Amino acid sequence: MFTSSDNNNTLFLGIDGGGSKCKAIVMNDNDETIGTGISGPGNPLHGFEQATNSIKESAKLALKDAGLADVELSSLIAGVGLAGVNLPVLFDQMKAWQHPFKQMFLAHDLLIACLGAHHSQNGAVIISGTGSCGFSCVDEKEVIVGGHGFPHGDKASGAWFGLQATKQVLLSLDGIIESSLMNDMLLNKLACSSTIAIVEAIAGKKATFYAQLANLVFDAAEQGDKVALAIVEEGAEYINSLARTLLTRKPVRLSMLGGLTLRLKPWLDKDLQVQLSDPLSEPEVGAVLLARQELAKQQGLNAQQSA
Amino acid sequence: MFTSSDNNNTLFLGIDGGGSKCKAIVMNDNDETIGTGISGPGNPLHGFEQATNSIKESAKLALKDAGLADVELSSLIAGVGLAGVNLPVLFDQMKAWQHPFKQMFLAHDLLIACLGAHHSQNGAVIISGTGSCGFSCVDEKEVIVGGHGFPHGDKASGAWFGLQATKQVLLSLDGIIESSLMNDMLLNKLACSSTIAIVEAIAGKKATFYAQLANLVFDAAEQGDKVALAIVEEGAEYINSLARTLLTRKPVRLSMLGGLTLRLKPWLDKDLQVQLSDPLSEPEVGAVLLARQELAKQQGLNAQQSA
Repeated sequence: MFTSSDNNNTLFLGIDGGGSKCKAIVMNDNDETIGTGISGPGNPLHGFEQATNSIKESAKLALKDAGLADVELSSLIAGVGLAGVNLPVLFDQMKAWQHPFKQMFLAHDLLIACLGAHHSQNGAVIISGTGSCGFSCVDEKEVIVGGHGFPHGDKASGAWFGLQATKQVLLSLDGIIESSLMNDMLLNKLACSSTIAIVEAIAGKKATFYAQLANLVFDAAEQGDKVALAIVEEGAEYINSLARTLLTRKPVRLSMLGGLTLRLKPWLDKDLQVQLSDPLSEPEVGAVLLARQELAKQQGLNAQQSA
Repeated sequence: MFTSSDNNNTLFLGIDGGGSKCKAIVMNDNDETIGTGISGPGNPLHGFEQATNSIKESAKLALKDAGLADVELSSLIAGVGLAGVNLPVLFDQMKAWQHPFKQMFLAHDLLIACLGAHHSQNGAVIISGTGSCGFSCVDEKEVIVGGHGFPHGDKASGAWFGLQATKQVLLSLDGIIESSLMNDMLLNKLACSSTIAIVEAIAGKKATFYAQLANLVFDAAEQGDKVALAIVEEGAEYINSLARTLLTRKPVRLSMLGGLTLRLKPWLDKDLQVQLSDPLSEPEVGAVLLARQELAKQQGLNAQQSA
């Protein structure tokens, strides 16, 4: 059985902490996945406690999944990619975390997504899940396009589609705009029978709630509903713009990631669809690649210093 | 000096509790205003404690303003109009409040606004302040159009204009849409020097925060900025629709109220502008009228029962 004292078998933890969930992967020194785990939101924008708890919980679940429940977190080399830590205040907060790992390398979720998608830092990604964002890294120059959070940013994300649908359904139920297939779909989805019931159901809700409503917009659009079509076309037009902006950086590859990828891709401009490459690995694998890269840099540095 | 035991001098309290502030007025039995007070948010959507504290505080300030600081709240007949209590759950919560007044008559903010604007229940109002809503009351039939809250409803409200501006400025700073006069205006208003600083400044902010940004959209539109113009035109088009929907109920009068009235009115369709009547009184006066009406009904009922 593997033990943490076995120096030839360093264990790597990869974390992808997003707004809805935190995904963990444990890989061995031969790049083999030996366990995975999923916990709650890992985005420190939704709270430091929540994020750090989710990271620890998902890591423990991944160890358990690997049959290594007795291995301590303190034996893991962790690569941690988190949504939100492109904001300096959140990066500093997470960097100062008294983490339980042997070592922790921190990056924003976009960098690990890019590393995972291309097995290289050179590339670009468009993400549309609960949130949305574009990112390119070419010759070590990183550019983030979009993102910014809900409800002011993250256009064409799941939360954006859900909120747009809700707004239009309320306008339609008020008789201000034409009726939409989405009216009944939303009432059914929320188990509501009136406008007031919808308003009570959504009061104060966050991005993750609205993201659950995204699919019904695509369902309605695919049935030809004009109100839904306008939303999907506006969202797709934004993703087109994101993609064209990223392509000006001349990335080697461009991938689209996140839960809405399959729904959104057919609506994008045809010339862009053919330029999208399937991602090679998940972002949490990219987090392990980050940890390996950074560890190798450190070891190189140590070798230089002792030479 | 007035004392609460003086039966010929009943004191009435009128409360208008909205999302940004709670306004109180104290009137005597001759319909004369003798004091006013303003406190924090009085909308129970933002919390029961906050709302009830604001109501009590504004009432005490109004008594103090009237030179009646030693008069107890328990001697006041209160008419209380609150944003949000059109939702049954919030109405029930406020109705169950162990209020400190001699009597309390509760209504939603739209009814007291209508009563204040027209000195009659027969009429219609469009409100655009922090939130937005349309309301008509004709032959005791009440109809609410719009509202629903932020960020999913309240189109063409201060919060809506502020959020739309923020979204467009972020898209513009990202290079996705054309540049806008609002970019520098928003950076200045928020004392920010970068996109990231804006995102940090607005993270998690509520309707009242965004409502403070509404005026800059109108300022930019009036200088011909295309991005701002599109927002103002979309907002005005919504208010046009609200007005036309309300006019189908054939109200005796239609008034527009709230902090954005002067900015929005010039952008409405000309035929609608001429149909708008200036409100006769503020909503808090309407709350006193409500209390008087309900008290008269009670007394009529008591007289019938004892006859």
